[in-house]
Order: sequence, then C-alpha cells, then structure tokens
Amino acid sequence: MRLRTPLLSLLALALALPGRAEEGMWTFDNLPLKQLKEKYQFEPGQAWIDHVRLSSLSLGGCSGSFVSAEGLVLTNHHCTRGSIARLSSKDRDMIKDGFVAMDRSQEIKMPGLTYRTLMAMENVTERVAQAVKPGMTEKQAAEARAKALDALKSQLEKKQGLTFETVNLYQGGETWMYGYKLFKDVRLVAAPEIALAAFGGDWDNFTYPRHDLDFSLVRVYEDGKPYNPPHHLTWSTEGLQAGDLTFVVGHPGRTYRQYTLAQMTYDRTAGIPDYLKNARRTVALLEAFGQRGPEQARQVQTLILGVTNGLKNREGALKGLQDAAAMKRIEAAEQALRAAVAQDPRLQASTGGSWARIEKALKDQEALRKPAAHLGAARSTTLGQALAIVRLGDQLALPEAKRLTEYRGENSLKTLRARLSGPAAGMMGMTPGKDLEIHLFTCGLEDLVQALGASHPYVKAMLGGRKPAELAKELVETTQLGNPATRKALVEGGQKAVAASPDPMIILARKLEPMLLALRLKQDALKAVIDEHAARIAKARFAVYGKTLSPDATGTLRVSYGTVSAYPANGTLIQPFTTFAGLYDRHWGWGGNAGKANTDWKLPQRWLDRMSQVDLKTPFNFAHAVDTVGGNSGSPVVNRKGELVGLLFDGNIDGLPGSYFYDERVNRSVSVDVRSILEALGKVYDAPHLVKELLAR
Amino acid sequence: MRLRTPLLSLLALALALPGRAEEGMWTFDNLPLKQLKEKYQFEPGQAWIDHVRLSSLSLGGCSGSFVSAEGLVLTNHHCTRGSIARLSSKDRDMIKDGFVAMDRSQEIKMPGLTYRTLMAMENVTERVAQAVKPGMTEKQAAEARAKALDALKSQLEKKQGLTFETVNLYQGGETWMYGYKLFKDVRLVAAPEIALAAFGGDWDNFTYPRHDLDFSLVRVYEDGKPYNPPHHLTWSTEGLQAGDLTFVVGHPGRTYRQYTLAQMTYDRTAGIPDYLKNARRTVALLEAFGQRGPEQARQVQTLILGVTNGLKNREGALKGLQDAAAMKRIEAAEQALRAAVAQDPRLQASTGGSWARIEKALKDQEALRKPAAHLGAARSTTLGQALAIVRLGDQLALPEAKRLTEYRGENSLKTLRARLSGPAAGMMGMTPGKDLEIHLFTCGLEDLVQALGASHPYVKAMLGGRKPAELAKELVETTQLGNPATRKALVEGGQKAVAASPDPMIILARKLEPMLLALRLKQDALKAVIDEHAARIAKARFAVYGKTLSPDATGTLRVSYGTVSAYPANGTLIQPFTTFAGLYDRHWGWGGNAGKANTDWKLPQRWLDRMSQVDLKTPFNFAHAVDTVGGNSGSPVVNRKGELVGLLFDGNIDGLPGSYFYDERVNRSVSVDVRSILEALGKVYDAPHLVKELLAR
Repeated sequence: MRLRTPLLSLLALALALPGRAEEGMWTFDNLPLKQLKEKYQFEPGQAWIDHVRLSSLSLGGCSGSFVSAEGLVLTNHHCTRGSIARLSSKDRDMIKDGFVAMDRSQEIKMPGLTYRTLMAMENVTERVAQAVKPGMTEKQAAEARAKALDALKSQLEKKQGLTFETVNLYQGGETWMYGYKLFKDVRLVAAPEIALAAFGGDWDNFTYPRHDLDFSLVRVYEDGKPYNPPHHLTWSTEGLQAGDLTFVVGHPGRTYRQYTLAQMTYDRTAGIPDYLKNARRTVALLEAFGQRGPEQARQVQTLILGVTNGLKNREGALKGLQDAAAMKRIEAAEQALRAAVAQDPRLQASTGGSWARIEKALKDQEALRKPAAHLGAARSTTLGQALAIVRLGDQLALPEAKRLTEYRGENSLKTLRARLSGPAAGMMGMTPGKDLEIHLFTCGLEDLVQALGASHPYVKAMLGGRKPAELAKELVETTQLGNPATRKALVEGGQKAVAASPDPMIILARKLEPMLLALRLKQDALKAVIDEHAARIAKARFAVYGKTLSPDATGTLRVSYGTVSAYPANGTLIQPFTTFAGLYDRHWGWGGNAGKANTDWKLPQRWLDRMSQVDLKTPFNFAHAVDTVGGNSGSPVVNRKGELVGLLFDGNIDGLPGSYFYDERVNRSVSVDVRSILEALGKVYDAPHLVKELLAR
Repeated sequence: MRLRTPLLSLLALALALPGRAEEGMWTFDNLPLKQLKEKYQFEPGQAWIDHVRLSSLSLGGCSGSFVSAEGLVLTNHHCTRGSIARLSSKDRDMIKDGFVAMDRSQEIKMPGLTYRTLMAMENVTERVAQAVKPGMTEKQAAEARAKALDALKSQLEKKQGLTFETVNLYQGGETWMYGYKLFKDVRLVAAPEIALAAFGGDWDNFTYPRHDLDFSLVRVYEDGKPYNPPHHLTWSTEGLQAGDLTFVVGHPGRTYRQYTLAQMTYDRTAGIPDYLKNARRTVALLEAFGQRGPEQARQVQTLILGVTNGLKNREGALKGLQDAAAMKRIEAAEQALRAAVAQDPRLQASTGGSWARIEKALKDQEALRKPAAHLGAARSTTLGQALAIVRLGDQLALPEAKRLTEYRGENSLKTLRARLSGPAAGMMGMTPGKDLEIHLFTCGLEDLVQALGASHPYVKAMLGGRKPAELAKELVETTQLGNPATRKALVEGGQKAVAASPDPMIILARKLEPMLLALRLKQDALKAVIDEHAARIAKARFAVYGKTLSPDATGTLRVSYGTVSAYPANGTLIQPFTTFAGLYDRHWGWGGNAGKANTDWKLPQRWLDRMSQVDLKTPFNFAHAVDTVGGNSGSPVVNRKGELVGLLFDGNIDGLPGSYFYDERVNRSVSVDVRSILEALGKVYDAPHLVKELLAR
C-alpha cells in the first residue's frame, strides 16, 4: 500500500505551487552535483562523467550511444527510419519486415550520415571578449568577435585534430568551442519491424503506457573496419526498478522556458489557437474530400493523420499554458527577475524596459494575425510552390545582406533549391492528386473571400474577378508545375526565367508576392524587436542567476536526471513499466490481427509465433521523471553505475507543455527498457550473436 | 487502419454539438424499438424481451441474472462482498482467498438477502386517476390515490401471487404496479479473491482499461432445493467483438438528467465545490495525523482512500458540468421545452414560472451555504452520534406527520436505531481511535471559529468559552458514547432518557440541536419549492414529449443499449477489450509481488502459478457505449440473441458526469467479459463442474 501516498501528496501539491526539483538539461561543465548529492546521495566522479559523455553521440537531430567495444551504436528506430526506407526496395521492405545482419558482411552502409562524439569543450568567453577593444563600433566588435572565433577554431582544430563548433549558452552569456570526432561510415545492423518500432502508430505517439520497440543498431566503421570506441556503455545486468535514479545523456533541441509571460500568453491566446483553427479546418476539408468515396478516403488518410498528430501536440502544449498554477509560477519567476534587474542600475538601464517592449511588439503583432492567417497560397500546393519559386528568384537578385534570412548561406539555398525541384513538395511532403488539389484550392479561395471580403486587394489579385471553383479548376489543370523539370528550370533560371514563364500559377504568384513580402517584412521588424529584448532579458538572467539554472536547450550535449516513477492520469496511477504481456494485451484488446477494428496495434506473425518463448514479464518501456524534449530521441538512459538501462524515445501527453515549463508531477519521459531489446534480439529475431556482443564485458 | 476514422469523426463532433444517440434507460413497456431497427437493424421479438426480463434480478441496490437452469445467479463481487465478509472468519477469509463450492453441499447460505424478478407490470395510471373525484381537496385526492393504490396492490397480489410495488415514472406522469417473485434462500457458490475482484483497488475504481474479475456466483433455492427458473440466460459461445451491439438489463438507481440548467449550475458553482472543499480539508487533516508515525498512518489510510475516492467521483462529475458544449446542449433542450410550455396555456399557467421559482430558491439557498458547511459535529464522530440520538428522541416525541421525512415509517426508523446502537458508526463506518477523534474534533472546532467567528451563537454554544484543543480532549475522554450499550439505552429510552443523560457529548448536542434544526427547516422549505417545481416541469416534459424520452432512473428494471467501442482518452484511442495478458502486464509493470512499489496490483500466488495454463488472449473486461449508472452493478450484458456476453460492474472516468448527461463520445460502461469467468473457473479455480453447469444447454 505504500505507493498510495503519491495521491495524497498530489492533493497537497495541487493546493500549493508545484516544485521544480528535476527541471534542467545540464551542460557537462556544470552538472547539478549539489542537487544530486543532496537529493539522491549520488556523487558521480569525473570518470563517470567523462565515460557517459564519451560514450554519447550526436546523430544530427537525434542522439545515440556506443554500446559495444566494436562500434555498435544504439539509437531509436525513428532516428534511422529515413535511411532504412532509402535502403529498402519493393523486394526488400526493411521498414515493414525489419532487418538483422547475421554477420558483419551483411551490415549495410547508410550513405550521407555523420555521427559525432563530443571530445572537448573549451570555454572561450573571455578570449572572445578580449578581441573587442574599447571604442569599436557594434559592427567592428561583431567582426572582431567573429575573427577571434575563426582563429580559435583553427587553432583548436590544428592542435586537437577535432572539428570545432561555436556554442552560445545562456543566450550569449557564455561562448564555448565544442570539439567533435566525426564518423561518416555508418552501417545498419538491426532494426525491428515498423509495427513494433511504432506499435500503436500515430494514436500512441506522445503517450504512455506504451509498447514501442523503438530501437535500431548501427555500427560505426573507421578505415573500413569496425571502430573501437575508447568508451562505450555496458549493458546493465541488474535492470531498473521503480524509484531508481536515471540519467539521460543527449541533445535536446529547443525549449522556450525563458519566454516572458507575455510571450507565453500570446502563444496561449493567439499563436496556438490560430494554429489549431487552421489545422482543424484542414482536417474538415480533407474529411469532406474523403467522403466522396473509398479511393478519396485512402488519399487523404495519411494527410489527416499528419495534421491530427500536430493538433495533438499543440493541444497538449496549450493545455499547459492554460494551467493556472504553472502560469502563476512562471509569473512569480518573472517578477523575481524583474525585481533583481531593478536593483542593479546597469541591468535596469539595458533591460528594465525589455518586458514592456516585448509586450508592445506582441500587441502590434495582433494587427498582423488576420493577414498572416489568410494571405498565402489558399491551400493550393502548386501555388505554394509557385510563390516559393518567385520569391527565390527575387531574393537571389538581391545582395546577400539584404535578403530574408533563409536566403543567406549556400547550405540553406542548396536545401531550398533541392526541395523546390524535387518530386514531392506538397503537404506532408506529398503531392496531392489534381482532384484533391482543386478541392482544397477552391475551399481555400472561398475561405479567403469570407475572411477578408471580396474587395481586399489580395483577394482581388488572387481571383481577378473569377469564381473560386472556376479559377481553381483552370489553374490546377493548366499549370505545368506538377512536372519537377519545369520547376527545376525556373529555380535554376532565376528571376529572369520566372518573369518569362507563361505558367498561370507563376503569373498569379508574381501578382501576389509583393503583398506577401510586405507582410513578411512587417513580421520581421516585430520579430527583431522581440529577439533583441529577449536576448537582453536572457543576459540579465545570466547576470543575476549565473549557472544555477541550466541554459535553454541548444541541440548540444546535456544531462537530465530523475527517477523511474508512476504518475496520475486517466483517473488512476500509471504503472512505471510496461511489459511484453502488455504488448500482447494491446494487440488482442482490438481482436488481434483478425479483429474488425484498428490496425495500429497489429503484430507481425513471428511475434505471435514466438510468444510462448518470450518471457512475458520482461519490461518493455518505462516512464521516468526526466526533463527532456525533441532531439533527445535516441539518448542513452544510464544508471548510477553509468551502465545502459534504457533508450529514450518519447514523452507522455502530460509532458507536451515541456517546451514552456517542466511539471515533475506529471511530465514523464518514455524510454525503451534495454531488457526488451535483448529479449527481442535473442528470442524473436534469432540474433544471439548481437546479444553476445552487447553483453560482452 | 480502419478504426482511425473515429478520431476524424471526433474532431468533426468537437465542432458540432454532440449527439445523444444512445442515451436512455428504457422501461420494458416502452423499449426504443424504432431506434434499434433504424440504427442497428435489430428487431427483438416479444419472446426476446420477455426472456431477458424474466432472467433478470433485482438484488436491492444491485442487479443480477439467472445463468443456469439450476438457479445460479451471476452478479458482481462488490454486490455480495458484504455478505461474504460476514460469512468469513479469521480462519476462513473468503474475501482475501475467494471461495468455490465444489458441490451443492458446500454452498453457503447468505442470510438476510432478498432477490427478486420482475414478473408483471401493470399500468395503473388511469385507475388511480379515476379515484380522484371532482371537487376533492388536494389532501383528499392524495388519500384517494393512496387508497386506490392499496386496493390495486391487494387485488393484484391476490390474483397473481406476487409482491407488488408502486413505481412512479416520468416524475408521476405514469404510475405502475410492478409485481415481483421474491427469493430469500440464496447461497454462495463462487467468488474470486478480492485482489482479482478489485484489481487495482481504489486507484482503478471508475477507470478503464480495467482488469477486474468482479463477479460472484450464488444459487437461489426454493423449498430447500435449487430453484429452476423458467428463464435463464445462456452463455454466449461466440463471444463479443468490437462494434457488436450489447444490451444491459438492470436497475439504474438515480439520475439528474431532468435538472434545470439552474440546478446544474448550482451544483457546479456551489454544491460540488463545497463538497470538494470539505473533502480536501478532511484529507489534509487525516494526512497531518498520519504524519505522527507509522501506526497513525495505518489508522488513517483507509479513511483517506475512502475520501479521495469520493473526490475522484465528484471531480469527474464537476468536469462534466464544466463542459461548455454539454451545457450548451442542456440549455438548448431547456429552451425548447420552455418554448413548448409557453405555447400551451394550461402548461404555461402551471409551469411557465417554475424555472424562475427554482432559480430563486437556489439563490436563497446561497445564504444557507456557509451555515450548512459549518454547523454540525465539527468533525467529531461521537458528537455526530450524540446529535443523531438527540434528534431521534425529539422527533419521536412528535406526531409522525410533523416529523422530518427520515423519521417517518417503521422501516427507516428501524435502520436508524440499529445504526445508532451498533459498534461502528463513524466516518466510513469506522470508529476512530481517541487520538484521531481528538485531532479531528480539535481541528474541526478551530475551523469553525475561523469560519464563523468567536461570537457566532453556534460557536459560543459549542465552545462555551473553552479552547478547541482543551474541549475536544475533555469531551472525547469523558464521553461514554463509545460504548454501544450506552447509545442503545439512549436510543431506546427516547427524549426522556436523553434529557436525563449526564454524558457531556449529549449535553452539548442538546445545546446545539435547536440551531441545527432551525437550519434544517429552512433548507427543507427551499427543497420543497424546488421539488414542487421540478415535479411540475417533469409533468410538462411528459406532456410535451410523452414517452419519446426515457424516464429518469428509479431503481427499477431498465434496458440500455450500445456497441462495444473504443474511445479517445489519455492522448490515444482506448482499446475496447482488455485481456488476461493485460492483467499480468499491470502486475509486472509495478515490479510484481516483489516490487518495491504499490500493492494494489499484486496477484495471489495461484494466479502466477496458473499463468502458463491460461489462454492469455482471453478477453477480461470491455468498454461499451451504454447509458448506465450506479445500481446497474451486476447487470447482465446480452447480445442480439439474448445470450449472456458480459457482466456490468463500472463506468470509465469520462462517464462520471453521467448522472447529469450522457456523452456518447467518451462515456463508457465497463463490464466483465464472461469468457474471463469461464477461463478463471476452469483453469485457475479448478471448478470444471461450474463451467459445465454454465455452458449446459
């Protein structure tokens, strides 16, 4: 009966303000050693710290870790899914069927990937600051800083033989050089079927209790041979229990924890509601199309799921912003910082007015909400492409410094060109069929007229006196932009080719672009104000609190910590672990593969055949009170001994407000228990050789 | 991918007003045959209807059904739990260990129970109305009606050899005589361990997915032999699938669907919040006591769980009343009824002003909220007993017609006397230890002073100038009311014995009772207004809609219907069935019996030993969109063939607003799948003889 206590504490908590005990994604130079010692009597030595860092990998948008002496890397299936799809063919569908290399010769090269380990971290804040001499203008100072950073990079790379990157923490409060060892020869070793890797499909996304075997094993090679990493995580043989302390070592991408209350309020009252309104309208339009018949229903199914999944995510975040207790806490923190700023004349001069400036800019942004919601491609994928092509041509005709941000730098231009010239460029990366495009465009045009009125300049330019249905049909049926070659020619031909194009979508886009650009420039001007003052507030926060708070996530290596723990949801207390038995329960709970109902919980036949061999009580996934966000996917979960116990892959629905704040009562990270990987490799996938390699000491 | 569609429909629904398609608990004379035919192409013949009715039983507060030709009755474990506890002893704990009679000789008599089957239904509305002659006063009319009913009852009982009871439907729109055959010899045949019957304990109460084997089997005897019922439900051999139509035949207790919007608003803004505030305070006080040490923590544990379970229930109901879409729908229905009333001069004259009268009475009730919340026993169980004893003596000294309702009629007085003379009479039927009583009384007195001020007459009478802690200690330590014999003597001695009692609690209660009675009379006066006008509205509703709506629940036999179906919750789609595999998953998800965590999901050893013999994919519980409430516990769930497929035992948390309105999107009844009962009897409880009897055709 012991664990009944949480409900009581919870009730007590509901009356007080929730704590923030486990909040934080900590950098390796500033781990929360004091908190760990006080709360968990845990004192990791430097060896522990170095070991988990050097065993970790950044996969670019995902995380991973070395898990064998011979270069095996463990990450999520959803982190390698794109590569596996590209390596698959009609005859060999490794997404559907999974894959296990039975020996090294069967391991498959995954081209185009770069994995990297953080080997060195240099705090260069002082050295960069010293480059700025008294009397320099702001521009000269920026150039001096950039030059100093370039010099430091060269110097560090020469000396250490690593690839260095600048990392700005605390919104510029500290500047670091992080040095990486890169790995470019990465080969697929094992991946489960998608039915297991994403059991429960989009329905179960962002939820718990969960039964996802969301892992893949790849091997890093160097000079054509398996790489022997100096550090790799050994597989725990004890396994986790409820209450055990866990650490997540990975690369959280982006958080908005430092948003001002006004920014959070804007997201709550305008930003997210506008998103939801548009997304719900999209779903309604797609559903209406799906009503036309089974083939149409099939066409819109994936599109709808993509939109509803986004809706789920944003509705979750909105729910957080509507949580009065959380907002009260955030307001109190803001008041405390403002009071501290007010007591320091220098900070007060630079930052005292910044909260009001942001609030004012957000108020001004209100006037742009309606145009921002409606000025655009009126739900036509092709018109969207045309608009992007027109803008690309116009922007490239300008000197780089005068362009919009995303048209600067060769890398982003390359990506943009490729996207506009490729075959799939519509919603969710899919090109809708003509009937669907006409339907969406027609409805988009009708919505536009209804929202802005027939006499609005944008509406007039768009319709040119025509009726929505007529115009949509004609444009979609006559445009040649469906052909990637046509688009490629326009992308490469630039402004001149665009001006000469007789394509009706391009002609329309050229009429619309000036109004869209004008709106964008107004938005950018407000954004500049907000960014500037947000940076000042961040600097003030750093000046006041220093490194007692962890910096907002920046996609670089961090450590989060917390215990495996239940949480209250759905009227009860949610179990900390799920098991293989639960996997089968959720399969049969829908009637099994023969069931009339949903297919998202169907299982491959071999999982049914092997059931009697599997130990059904083996833990499958677990929930732990650890502060993580997107980018942490694939992060190793380690125990006090620094051994591998889990593989992070998601969070629960109650954790969706996590970009804004962390609520330890209900926010849970969701990880694969590594015992389930061993059980599956050994008893379902017939891969004892991999089990042996993973357990080797 | 087929069942993905519900999300879409759900989104569409979220934008429109939700439907009421499956709402209703229908009487057997007025089954929704048209809806069943149109929506489900199902046309039950009279034989089907009679068969399910005659197979059903009322157990008094619960429902049940005949399930074998030899008188076996199936109901919930929680419907027979009290009896089983009384039959248990230290040496034979049938609650903990369960029970299976291996032959008839082992079946155990359960004294004091009366089960009954509804054999006949007579609509006597006309005959009763005819008893009222023109020119009679209201009192004369009431007496004439009562006399007519008595005569009808005698006449029917004589003719049919059944026991008849009056049933008022549609708040008096129709009057019926229901004739029952009674069974008083009822014997326990089989019951699972409490760990299975209430797996997940109070945590899982009101929730789904669920894994409760909440059944018991009893046998009805007549003349010392197993009774052969003319009708019993045969056990389905096909089993249910998602989407299958189900019928629940049982005795829903009470609903508030006909509340006016003002009444629902009052519950939302005052009634439930006052309840929650008091209950949360109770929990806080009990928790504070539990902090004193492990023994104290043990003492308050069950008390706290009882309170938190009530909190869960009322919080669920409150959530429903806060659902803007649902309230909009209820408002629209009220507007429609008011408009119809306004168009009929007679109805308008009787009822046009009734909504305003109720609203006014509720407004007046506001003034009584504070006294109602604080005037009372100040959390002392013993003072509560003393107050009840004092009032009982005073009331019995009055002529019956002048007493408060609950002091009229020999039956209710008998129950009251027994309760006041028995050993356990405190919170949750438990008598708190003296330390806990002093703690609660002290805090109750302190709260009283804080809420009403030291100069309030009630506070002055209560404290008599003493300090809360002092007074509480002295009274609790000197009162003799802890001894049941003392209370019994006072109860039997009446007003005179009470007046002579030297017990300090009785003396205090006599000082307080006049103020409490005055408050009660004010409350009763307002209640009378509300009851009168609610009755007028109900009559108007019956006049306008007749029997197209089902009447509010009255504890009599009804049929509800709907399909086995998933529903959205916790971010995903909840599976329609759970399975034996899920039972084990939830057990091991907490670490099994050896786990450090919660004990509410622990399993008896034989369930672990027998796991390998059980077919793990056997359905355990299921969710169906059927409109039921408390009192439906133990109801048989039957399929289109009238065969037994399930045993209703609860609803999901989203269905807690069900007393006020039915929301088919998320309100689900939760039933035991009868396949799990067979599997458990055959493979865990070694009772093949029962399986054989249940499956006999």
